[in-house]
Amino acid sequence: MHSRLINPADLNFLLYDVLKVDELCKFPRFNEHGRETFDATIETAYSIASDWFAPCAAKLDENEPEFVDGKVTMIPEVAAALQQYYDAGFGAATHDYELGGMQLPFSVSVACKAIFGAANMPVLSYPSLTNANANVIRNFGSDEQKRLYLQPLLNGRFMGTMALTEPQAGSSLSDIKTQATCAEDGTYRLKGNKIFISGGDHELSENIIHLVLARTQGAPDGVKGLSLFIVPKFLVNDDGSLGERNDVNLAGLIHKMGWRGTTSTMLKFGEKDGAVGYLIGEPNRGLLYMFQMMNEARIGVGVGAVSQGYTSYLHTLDYARNRPQGRHPHEKDPQSPQIPLTEHADIKRMLLAAKSYAEGGLYLSLYGATLADTHAHCADPEAAKRAGTLLDILTPILKSWPSKYCLEANSIAIQVHGGYGYTREYPVERFYRDNRLNPIHEGTEGIQAMDLLGRKVSMQDGLPYTLLSEEILSTVQACQAEPQLAEFANSLLQRKAKLDATTQTIVAAMQASKSNLALANATPYLHAFGHIVMAWLWLRQAQVAVLAINTETGSDRTLLLQGKLAACRYFFRYELPQVDAALELVQSLDDTCFELESSCL
Amino acid sequence: MHSRLINPADLNFLLYDVLKVDELCKFPRFNEHGRETFDATIETAYSIASDWFAPCAAKLDENEPEFVDGKVTMIPEVAAALQQYYDAGFGAATHDYELGGMQLPFSVSVACKAIFGAANMPVLSYPSLTNANANVIRNFGSDEQKRLYLQPLLNGRFMGTMALTEPQAGSSLSDIKTQATCAEDGTYRLKGNKIFISGGDHELSENIIHLVLARTQGAPDGVKGLSLFIVPKFLVNDDGSLGERNDVNLAGLIHKMGWRGTTSTMLKFGEKDGAVGYLIGEPNRGLLYMFQMMNEARIGVGVGAVSQGYTSYLHTLDYARNRPQGRHPHEKDPQSPQIPLTEHADIKRMLLAAKSYAEGGLYLSLYGATLADTHAHCADPEAAKRAGTLLDILTPILKSWPSKYCLEANSIAIQVHGGYGYTREYPVERFYRDNRLNPIHEGTEGIQAMDLLGRKVSMQDGLPYTLLSEEILSTVQACQAEPQLAEFANSLLQRKAKLDATTQTIVAAMQASKSNLALANATPYLHAFGHIVMAWLWLRQAQVAVLAINTETGSDRTLLLQGKLAACRYFFRYELPQVDAALELVQSLDDTCFELESSCL
Repeated sequence: MHSRLINPADLNFLLYDVLKVDELCKFPRFNEHGRETFDATIETAYSIASDWFAPCAAKLDENEPEFVDGKVTMIPEVAAALQQYYDAGFGAATHDYELGGMQLPFSVSVACKAIFGAANMPVLSYPSLTNANANVIRNFGSDEQKRLYLQPLLNGRFMGTMALTEPQAGSSLSDIKTQATCAEDGTYRLKGNKIFISGGDHELSENIIHLVLARTQGAPDGVKGLSLFIVPKFLVNDDGSLGERNDVNLAGLIHKMGWRGTTSTMLKFGEKDGAVGYLIGEPNRGLLYMFQMMNEARIGVGVGAVSQGYTSYLHTLDYARNRPQGRHPHEKDPQSPQIPLTEHADIKRMLLAAKSYAEGGLYLSLYGATLADTHAHCADPEAAKRAGTLLDILTPILKSWPSKYCLEANSIAIQVHGGYGYTREYPVERFYRDNRLNPIHEGTEGIQAMDLLGRKVSMQDGLPYTLLSEEILSTVQACQAEPQLAEFANSLLQRKAKLDATTQTIVAAMQASKSNLALANATPYLHAFGHIVMAWLWLRQAQVAVLAINTETGSDRTLLLQGKLAACRYFFRYELPQVDAALELVQSLDDTCFELESSCL
Repeated sequence: MHSRLINPADLNFLLYDVLKVDELCKFPRFNEHGRETFDATIETAYSIASDWFAPCAAKLDENEPEFVDGKVTMIPEVAAALQQYYDAGFGAATHDYELGGMQLPFSVSVACKAIFGAANMPVLSYPSLTNANANVIRNFGSDEQKRLYLQPLLNGRFMGTMALTEPQAGSSLSDIKTQATCAEDGTYRLKGNKIFISGGDHELSENIIHLVLARTQGAPDGVKGLSLFIVPKFLVNDDGSLGERNDVNLAGLIHKMGWRGTTSTMLKFGEKDGAVGYLIGEPNRGLLYMFQMMNEARIGVGVGAVSQGYTSYLHTLDYARNRPQGRHPHEKDPQSPQIPLTEHADIKRMLLAAKSYAEGGLYLSLYGATLADTHAHCADPEAAKRAGTLLDILTPILKSWPSKYCLEANSIAIQVHGGYGYTREYPVERFYRDNRLNPIHEGTEGIQAMDLLGRKVSMQDGLPYTLLSEEILSTVQACQAEPQLAEFANSLLQRKAKLDATTQTIVAAMQASKSNLALANATPYLHAFGHIVMAWLWLRQAQVAVLAINTETGSDRTLLLQGKLAACRYFFRYELPQVDAALELVQSLDDTCFELESSCL
């Protein structure tokens, strides 16, 4: 069962051979850890995911939460699974020992997230959102706020939400209208409507702590006038016990194509006298606080997408190995036995594609997480800064690439299953439905593209781009000397040069007051950029695999390592060349979309 | 409401300006028709689709057919919609006047299919399958069989299925096991299990006529031993009345991700004494009969995919025009009003992509249908033959291209809607689920690729390829002289030359006993081939649009025509260049997939 969530041998390869996460234990924060504690944590995650999360995934999808008699009901397996999760300490995995946390690296928690997400993403979403919420309070809340909310958010007694979106303000947070009025005691009263609030109501915890973006009276327009408030469902007394019900109410549940086990809610704040809210930090800095958590949140979306793509790949591989269907084209004898699907070249093509997306995406997510760990905890300030800068430019890729390509892996999974894959008897259609959310939430693909081209590529005079280039070229140089990899290293070098030229052109256009035209090319630029990053990461995996093949004789992981080389080859032959057309388009500063009169659509 | 199914102005443009379907009336079979009768038929289709098909689409999706007390129940709106459909004569649209048919061109019926499919594909599937069934009986059945079954199949008293697939024989029809034993009276008794039989049971008609592929005793192995049988649910007496229940039973309904209103069934033939079946034509020619209907069936799948992509595009355009969200990148004043989604360059990019897929796919389907009409009914045998040959090579594209790209249009529709598009409050998620079937059934994408490369490209010493080349080059030459289009004509010419070179290489490899390696490249070849065909069809639309713009002053369809030019430009800038990477891969006879040891996946 483990092996249909995330392949443990692959996870080990990525964590220890490629990323060497055990070296994170040199950082003071992690110095009580070592590979043993990481492995034990991961093993526990596999157990709970297999025994408690996966078994109820299909049932939860078929029996989505309902709003009955003023309460949200859902199948009891969800609470039972979460109980296991919190009992094992995953609710506080990365948090301080003093708070009951395990003080684990974020990268190890991301590995666990991949495992839990592969088993049941909707169930995982409740503690994931709660953890994101807790991180904001930990980083920006007052001591009093931390005392009242942090511990219960980490042990599952409370859960949390992020309440940003409003009916008229989706991607455009600037247009948030929820109002917060200061009361005499310094608390606030909020009035407004929020929509698409995941986990916005349920009975899984004693209390729900909403983090709400709202505008104080007289605040500036736009995003610079947004403040962040703690708005609990039940007010919390000074001793931590629950007080009266706050004026925040469920206006309705939203029914989705997938991800059905996670309640998506419309919430009304302040139907009566106003919902009591507590300002976090200073006024008008709400979005800033949210955005300081954004890198990790976007890695979270990325690895969520990976988990769906990865498990669907493993389910499909298992199916394809065991499903006899058809014969090789040259075999004309109908009495010869049918061969397994995996023996057909076109099925191999699809499986290689899915493997390159899923395993590549997992590496991308884990790599991003090690950058976050290094940024936050490395004792060497230069190294920490460098990691943070790399993380900045990679964040749009960390979010968007798995969201796009692991969804494609889900589609491939259906295709390889054939008619069976389209039925609800097999889980692959559910993964496909669940994963379709990821290109939308936490900043759409278009928003990621604008972030990359409009901000990240040119910030700090191009330093993030320069640092990333150094990393890529370092791998290229090492691999040019390796006969099995030289072809790929040279191919990557060639595309990287094209990306450099295109980047120069488009950044120059941005600076020459053609920014609207330049940004009209942001999405093809994002796609090309992402595929080049992924080609680099596949080359890096292949580099480590070649080394291991050459040094490990009689290894029990020869197939794993050969598989890495095959997927790398697939990626360089089938995927990377696609960037040429996109880069040429962007390089030409194409104005097809920019100039289009929308009335002729 | 019409305008959210298929844009009538576009349909007119394609049918009359581009394809000149009114000229089909020169063929003897259609000489009582003219544009008036075509238009009246299409208008009726719009009415019934809008008034009866579309209103129950969401309800049917939410309330899928159930198997209760031995019967299949479904919402009554389905039968009511079908009553309208049959009453208006659509069940026999293309059939002879003597049979109560309208003797319409297939191309006009395909236009109607796009309209009905856009409104409610699952409801349309019942008469569509029935019509396919009736066509087989009309072409290959005995006079007695035609007398008993044809008329009721055309007027909706009976409905029909195609029962090919078995649990162990999906794409591999060679492995069909259902047995047919000849009885003393010359009828047969069938025993076997069929799966994924759409419309295999329901109460929408008095009777259900299954066309079943089975093997007679002593028949050769493989596809050459398959015979085709009529197996009615209720035996039909000589006077046409219903006799006793036949030995064919519903073993269960299959629950699907989408297309939920169409029952997908497991059927057991011959649980007792054997299901009574009547041989069609000669023994062992069953697949041949089926395949002679295949070109039209595959156009049917293609236009079904188009209908889903097209209506989702129109729904999305409507949403995007009316949804204010955000501002232009240069607009820093948060008090300025939000602009409609359609004003954002990246949204325009997505809408142009969807438009090019949907409208391009519709043209492709209609063009294929006119080839079928010409092939079947043109009085000039040379012209008829030429059309048939073109249809042969285009059939894999007609089926696979819309299945892939109109599904992508559905995904774009969700993306443009943002969070709303992921909810079941908007229809676009349903279109996405429904359309995911099309790349699977009636020959998967991989099967289409094998058909194109393994058969169509090299058949008749390459004649189909040569004829298609002539058609493409003729458009290219005409457009090279047109300043607005010369860039695109030259771009197409360049890619066509690459396709020629790649085709030569790969056909040579096929003939040099490297056919397995060559066929391992079939899918990227299909993709490149399809996109080149579509670029040609977009250039052709632009050619007609330029002519119309130049000749029609003050036309009320200026926006339509400008839109055609914009979509053509999009296709040539964003889409066509993607073929270079695919053609280069195929040209190199890449062996990544062919050589892969599947054990290292």
